[in-house]
Amino acid sequence: MTDHKSCSGNFFEDFALGQRFGCTTPRWMGGGERALYISMTGDRTPGFCDETQRIHPLQVFHQVLGQTVRDVSLNAIANLGYSDIRWHDDVGIGDTITTECEVIGLKENSNQRSGIVWVRTLGYDQEGRCLMSFVRWVMVRKRARVMTPWLDTPERPSLPKQVDRAWLKERVVQCEQTQGRSQRDLFFEDYVVGEQIDHVDGHTVNPSEHMGFTRLFQNSARVHFDALHTEGRPLVFGGFAMSVGYAQALNGLDNRLGLIGMNSGAHPNPVYAGDTLFSATEVLDLDALGPESAVGLIRCRLRVVKNQRALSPVVAPGDVVLDMDYWEQMPKRSAVVDPGGSTVG
Amino acid sequence: MTDHKSCSGNFFEDFALGQRFGCTTPRWMGGGERALYISMTGDRTPGFCDETQRIHPLQVFHQVLGQTVRDVSLNAIANLGYSDIRWHDDVGIGDTITTECEVIGLKENSNQRSGIVWVRTLGYDQEGRCLMSFVRWVMVRKRARVMTPWLDTPERPSLPKQVDRAWLKERVVQCEQTQGRSQRDLFFEDYVVGEQIDHVDGHTVNPSEHMGFTRLFQNSARVHFDALHTEGRPLVFGGFAMSVGYAQALNGLDNRLGLIGMNSGAHPNPVYAGDTLFSATEVLDLDALGPESAVGLIRCRLRVVKNQRALSPVVAPGDVVLDMDYWEQMPKRSAVVDPGGSTVG
Amino acid sequence: MTDHKSCSGNFFEDFALGQRFGCTTPRWMGGGERALYISMTGDRTPGFCDETQRIHPLQVFHQVLGQTVRDVSLNAIANLGYSDIRWHDDVGIGDTITTECEVIGLKENSNQRSGIVWVRTLGYDQEGRCLMSFVRWVMVRKRARVMTPWLDTPERPSLPKQVDRAWLKERVVQCEQTQGRSQRDLFFEDYVVGEQIDHVDGHTVNPSEHMGFTRLFQNSARVHFDALHTEGRPLVFGGFAMSVGYAQALNGLDNRLGLIGMNSGAHPNPVYAGDTLFSATEVLDLDALGPESAVGLIRCRLRVVKNQRALSPVVAPGDVVLDMDYWEQMPKRSAVVDPGGSTVG
Repeated sequence: MTDHKSCSGNFFEDFALGQRFGCTTPRWMGGGERALYISMTGDRTPGFCDETQRIHPLQVFHQVLGQTVRDVSLNAIANLGYSDIRWHDDVGIGDTITTECEVIGLKENSNQRSGIVWVRTLGYDQEGRCLMSFVRWVMVRKRARVMTPWLDTPERPSLPKQVDRAWLKERVVQCEQTQGRSQRDLFFEDYVVGEQIDHVDGHTVNPSEHMGFTRLFQNSARVHFDALHTEGRPLVFGGFAMSVGYAQALNGLDNRLGLIGMNSGAHPNPVYAGDTLFSATEVLDLDALGPESAVGLIRCRLRVVKNQRALSPVVAPGDVVLDMDYWEQMPKRSAVVDPGGSTVG
Repeated sequence: MTDHKSCSGNFFEDFALGQRFGCTTPRWMGGGERALYISMTGDRTPGFCDETQRIHPLQVFHQVLGQTVRDVSLNAIANLGYSDIRWHDDVGIGDTITTECEVIGLKENSNQRSGIVWVRTLGYDQEGRCLMSFVRWVMVRKRARVMTPWLDTPERPSLPKQVDRAWLKERVVQCEQTQGRSQRDLFFEDYVVGEQIDHVDGHTVNPSEHMGFTRLFQNSARVHFDALHTEGRPLVFGGFAMSVGYAQALNGLDNRLGLIGMNSGAHPNPVYAGDTLFSATEVLDLDALGPESAVGLIRCRLRVVKNQRALSPVVAPGDVVLDMDYWEQMPKRSAVVDPGGSTVG
Repeated sequence: MTDHKSCSGNFFEDFALGQRFGCTTPRWMGGGERALYISMTGDRTPGFCDETQRIHPLQVFHQVLGQTVRDVSLNAIANLGYSDIRWHDDVGIGDTITTECEVIGLKENSNQRSGIVWVRTLGYDQEGRCLMSFVRWVMVRKRARVMTPWLDTPERPSLPKQVDRAWLKERVVQCEQTQGRSQRDLFFEDYVVGEQIDHVDGHTVNPSEHMGFTRLFQNSARVHFDALHTEGRPLVFGGFAMSVGYAQALNGLDNRLGLIGMNSGAHPNPVYAGDTLFSATEVLDLDALGPESAVGLIRCRLRVVKNQRALSPVVAPGDVVLDMDYWEQMPKRSAVVDPGGSTVG
């Protein structure tokens, strides 16, 4: 007798508008989780390596997302996008993350084999403080080829094109850290709209590394771990390319204090072990937040490209593995008492 | 001048009945050790990821066993089996594990090239509290082809077929946690003797991952680390298949509180990097521990199979890499105030 | 518009005598950092695995060195050597490491394509306590083929051949731990000048492992991470061979308390993933530090060899990947209350 206690995940027909899911596994974030993140990504952003014991915002994001995989995306064909990602508060070593999510949109695809599910996701700490919120949408397989109401009458949520500016400003004011610690003389005043920063360094993806990264976040989607199921090529979790790209982007944004909002993000093409990732940043916008603020915001477009430099003229659309648009906090030179400085070329 | 300070381990002739070994290296268990375990195995059992800061029982087992490798099994040909494994108490972040072991049985093999050594092993914390105990037996090479007394007059210890039931009951009563936190509506009452649970997910073993796992436990048996010594195929530590299989088994035993006793365990066939592991559980027995108990016990047989689904009809004896029989704690629905619940299929 | 905010590192012409660099990223050392070090190297030295929560001296060394890579060695062709390495104080979980360095020597090579830069490096904790100091010298590419003053008038610092003996003695007196905990009956009195210890165990290097190790220390030199840039063979960070060799050397120096000074170190040949490393120690000198000291010093020459046993008669100069000369602390039998002991062969 074989039963069906083992969960194969939800199919498109299993979702309902307004449906809610609780957290599969609360996660205590320790120093070990932080050390693994640094070792796997190479991220050297001072605020997330130093004695303030804060956890990297992208680590929080992956953890929150990972906690929703069992309910939302075990049968996903593709992770289509993210919107309105906000980091409401800092997370530190010792916090425990739990997650809730709610289905806010459903649309069956015209081929009747799959549909799109929009999910609003919220991450909390042990005291119920909201740590982050975002909407993601995924294409999910159907169980059978029977039409659902969401083919003729899809429900698409209205999503903001950008994270609310007033919220961003208020969020920056809360931050205690306002100084970069990188010893490079690069501050908010040095960036101009339209500039492109080539982040130079390549990162070749190894199998143990991307799988260990994905497991760290309790993301259990089999497509990342099972070489038999994937013809020998387990798919690299999209969050890994995001973290590697952001880590690479420190070189040129050295004094950054950490991203606090993301307008959008997408994974246009897959990554596999053996690929080498490169990144570039385009400055899309700048917000000085008024003269009284010690920190300004830079709207960055981060593109991660595989197997060639990210600003190479021959980059084709099929080479781009991440395209994300986010707001970075950058200290102002005018507010820094001792800007340090270095002669590094 | 070359000396022999470097230890090549004990051979069969070096063991004596009643011989005792102390701990090679006391090990402080930190949050880092826990995070590595999660990242390497993908285990998502709530009680060992959450803020209670407990260390996974199998991590404690591997640590205790690892501390005996230098004295017991550097010259092992095979790890033949385990018996009467008991986890006497919870281990938390901040505890330090030390180990003692005693030779309780010896039998020389008829080919006079090796013999079997039975060892009782005890793990303690920094205050001398006994954390776990078990017997394991290994086949160990002889140094020379000279007969020992253990060929004609072997000493085989009498071992229980199962962990004592009265002890199990008492152990459960101690536990503070009595509720699952997985948000799945699966409780003790849902399991029946004889059912088989197919755990669905595959885990492809990578070299860095299994070697790093083995080093984490200070297990120094060269066969796991040295590709030259093993014709390019270092053997995966048996404890890794055990931990991966148990991690996979969460899917279908989602609310489990952790194993507390193991009747037996064996590694019938080797695992190498590149193998993909799958698991299945058979419910061998159930013990409700009386109506007053909030938790029941499920006797599980966990089988881990390589390179095909564990309940596939074509699984051959040579495909089974772990066969273990243990007691799992499972909360009762009748005792749960808010059973949560999910619509996951 | 592409700008040059992304740092490509200093070239030989960019260095000036007396030039100083501050720390790129202060690093908090947690239990996770320690657990990763153990898991990646297999080091089982009791004092750095146990409840004293001390961080391994080589982990401190790699961290301090890693913090100087951006300023000193992004354009290095070779890491030529180290001198006068001193560990001034123990580092524990919870300490934050920052680094300073100063250029103390410059010499342009006669081919006018590169030069040698000598850098004195100092590591501090959060209270300004000096944790370690050393000099290293690296061969760095020139930006252009224009002669510098350092071709005709090189400045070579005068470096000691050995760490100062009086300093070593004072350093040992400070140490609180004076007893080995390995349960092996091997003490200071057992070592003689000229003996060779073959450390037996091999360690095959995996890609994820050496890259993760290097990232752990925030070492961002691209040659270690980018398979495209290195024709498919990223170079293993020299510090990894050092840590693996020292870990292997525990077998035969089981009761060691940790190195406190290094006279010299060099990486004569490169290591790549797939190589298997073996080690041997030669006892170069012994210093009992007077009868009142519970600990003696052993001057060890550690050689790490690739793809064959380190004392094999056919080891060729091209097989040696590390040659280092350091002072190890070893408890004396005469001072040990209960020397433990084991019958391990």
